[in-house]
Amino acid sequence: MELPEATSMLARTPKVLDTLLAGLPAKWLHRDDGPGTWSAYDIVGHLLEGEATNWLPRTRMILQQGTGQAFGPFDREAMRGRGRQPAAVLLARFTAARLASLEELSSSELTVDDMERRGLHPDLGEVTLGQLLATWVAHDLTHLAQVGEVLARRYRDDVGPYRAYLPALDRTADAE
Amino acid sequence: MELPEATSMLARTPKVLDTLLAGLPAKWLHRDDGPGTWSAYDIVGHLLEGEATNWLPRTRMILQQGTGQAFGPFDREAMRGRGRQPAAVLLARFTAARLASLEELSSSELTVDDMERRGLHPDLGEVTLGQLLATWVAHDLTHLAQVGEVLARRYRDDVGPYRAYLPALDRTADAE
Repeated sequence: MELPEATSMLARTPKVLDTLLAGLPAKWLHRDDGPGTWSAYDIVGHLLEGEATNWLPRTRMILQQGTGQAFGPFDREAMRGRGRQPAAVLLARFTAARLASLEELSSSELTVDDMERRGLHPDLGEVTLGQLLATWVAHDLTHLAQVGEVLARRYRDDVGPYRAYLPALDRTADAE
Repeated sequence: MELPEATSMLARTPKVLDTLLAGLPAKWLHRDDGPGTWSAYDIVGHLLEGEATNWLPRTRMILQQGTGQAFGPFDREAMRGRGRQPAAVLLARFTAARLASLEELSSSELTVDDMERRGLHPDLGEVTLGQLLATWVAHDLTHLAQVGEVLARRYRDDVGPYRAYLPALDRTADAE
C-alpha cells in the first residue's frame, strides 16, 4: 500500500457514487434484499458514518495515543438511526466529509515509517496505520461492488432465462 | 423493467467507469486474480465487445427476424484477442459505443408492446426484447461490482487482520 495511490483512490469514491446514484428514482436507491440488508442509499449512509467515526478518528488515535487506548466502537448500522434525508443531500455530505478527511490526512504529512505505527482495535488487536488506510480503500471498493449488485438485483426477475448467466443476481446479500 | 429507466442506467455506466478508472496506474488497471480471471481493463474490454456484438445486434435481430434465426455467438473472452490499447482509448471507445447504442435504441422508438417481441438465444431458447434489455442493465451493474472487487483485492494482504471483515477480498473471482 502506497499512501498517494490509496488517497487517490479514496478521492474517487464520492464522484463514482455520485455518477452512479445522483438522480436515481427511489425504487433504485432504496431497493434492498430484505430485512437486515442494505440499499444503495444505506451504503452511502454507512460510508458517511465511517468518515465521522471510523477512518480519520482512528488515524488520529494511532498518531496521538498509539496502542494506549483501544479505538472507540464503530456502529455499522448507525445510518439507520438517522432521519431519512434526500439522497442528493447524503451524497453531498459524503463528498464534503471525504474531502475533509483527505485534507486532514494530507496535512498530517505521513511518512512511510508512520505506516508502521500501531493502534489497538477493540476486536482485532493491534493494527498498523498502513493496515487501517488500506482497509479504508478496500472498504470503499467492496461497498461500491455491493451497490452495483443490489441495484442489479432489481432486474432479477426481468432478465428471465438470462438469470442463469448472472450468478450475482442470486448471491446472498452480504453487508460488509 | 421500464425502458426509460433502463436506458438512463445504461447511459451512466461509461461515466462511472471513467470516474473510477481513468488515469489509474497499470498495477490497478491490469490487476487480476490469476489465470482466466479478469482485470478492470479486461472488464471494460468485455463491455465494449458487448456493444459491438451482443446487445444492439441482438435487439435488431429480434425486431427484424424475431425467432426465425438464432442470435450469433457472443465471445465473452473476445477482448483478449485484441491488441492492448491504452486504457484511456478503451474507455473512450466504450463511451462512444454506448452512446451510439443508446441513440440507435432511442431512434427505434420502442413501445411497451415491443418488449414482448421474441428472439432466439442459441442456448437459452426464446427470450423477449424486454429480457434482453433488462439483462444489458444487470450485466453492466454486476460487472461494475466485479471491477470494485478486483480492485479491492489489490489490498488483500495490506489490510492485515481487517481481512476478516472483508469477505469480498477472499471471494473466488467469477467472470460473469
